[in-house]
Amino acid sequence: MLILASASPRRRQLLQQAGLDFTVEVADIDERVQPGETPAKYVQRLALEKAQAIWERGKAEDSEDDPLIVLGADTTVVCDGEILGKPEDQADARRMLQMLAGRTHQVLTGVAAVSARGLFSEVEVTQVFFDLIDEEEMIHYLASGEPMDKAGAYGIQGYAARWIPRIEGCFFNVMGLPLARTMALLTRAREDRSETQPTSRLSGFAG
Amino acid sequence: MLILASASPRRRQLLQQAGLDFTVEVADIDERVQPGETPAKYVQRLALEKAQAIWERGKAEDSEDDPLIVLGADTTVVCDGEILGKPEDQADARRMLQMLAGRTHQVLTGVAAVSARGLFSEVEVTQVFFDLIDEEEMIHYLASGEPMDKAGAYGIQGYAARWIPRIEGCFFNVMGLPLARTMALLTRAREDRSETQPTSRLSGFAG
Repeated sequence: MLILASASPRRRQLLQQAGLDFTVEVADIDERVQPGETPAKYVQRLALEKAQAIWERGKAEDSEDDPLIVLGADTTVVCDGEILGKPEDQADARRMLQMLAGRTHQVLTGVAAVSARGLFSEVEVTQVFFDLIDEEEMIHYLASGEPMDKAGAYGIQGYAARWIPRIEGCFFNVMGLPLARTMALLTRAREDRSETQPTSRLSGFAG
Repeated sequence: MLILASASPRRRQLLQQAGLDFTVEVADIDERVQPGETPAKYVQRLALEKAQAIWERGKAEDSEDDPLIVLGADTTVVCDGEILGKPEDQADARRMLQMLAGRTHQVLTGVAAVSARGLFSEVEVTQVFFDLIDEEEMIHYLASGEPMDKAGAYGIQGYAARWIPRIEGCFFNVMGLPLARTMALLTRAREDRSETQPTSRLSGFAG
């Protein structure tokens, strides 16, 4: 029994394409960056908080025959150490795209799996190279609305693909979920229950 | 007026996502590798042959107001210098996947644009890292039929994504069309006609 604790349609699509069976439940958590928090700590914390919130809600359904695993993830775009979240408006989207144009930035995804075995989490980093953006294309892209619901104001699949000649790292990470790493994490969370840590350890961590 | 000279649904999808208007026409060309031909020469030649065949068919419709550009592309997977085409059967698909597992291979796409300005072509190379493939997943993947119509017996979007933790280069190249490079090539093929070379130069090359 796998639950994806994320509202992202792209993550859902990636897990489906990878052939996994799962349901989706979305946790309502505070996504603000904490003072002094690094981008890596931030995405890892949010991924864990999403997964833990849904685990707490559903853990009564966990059983030896059908162990429950909850998967959480959070992705952010980092440029010059600044976390670029979703843009507030078109002007903010333009500012972010101008910041990314003609250089390399990082996409970080925190991935967390929670099961009766415990908490497992990792952070994946991909380097993304951006071309210069010409003004005509910028106007077109801003008007399309595509930047507005995306961290860093772009989606790698879609119109912005034309500006991205090169990446180094996991592509699926840039879409929102590093699949190879996620599969390995799920395997760890699913391993033989005979070695299970007491669930109280989890509660201890969660509290 | 842009014509994509390729039957690949993935190329069509990528161009659509990048916001281009085009039609599709497919050329019937001999896709056999010539003796002594390198993988890079091979994909470049096929891309050009596809684009030239459709250009010859449609060039009467080329006009100053609405210049015709034909785009051709061909993608192949190369491992240890061997070109891996589409597998002949399941056993061949298994052989290819076993060859790719646990190491790095190259995906090469030749891209060619033909217009009244001339012929323009380039080759894009992406490094693709593959994890080991466990036997259960191998059996599942072969049975799914997904490997059968794909060079190298895998598609990066889909089930095989779980085995690909990392790439270096253009992701869209691995899907079949390096978008950033293609956009630059199309710009070159579309440039101001006042500098146009006589079309006879193209015919000379094509003949």
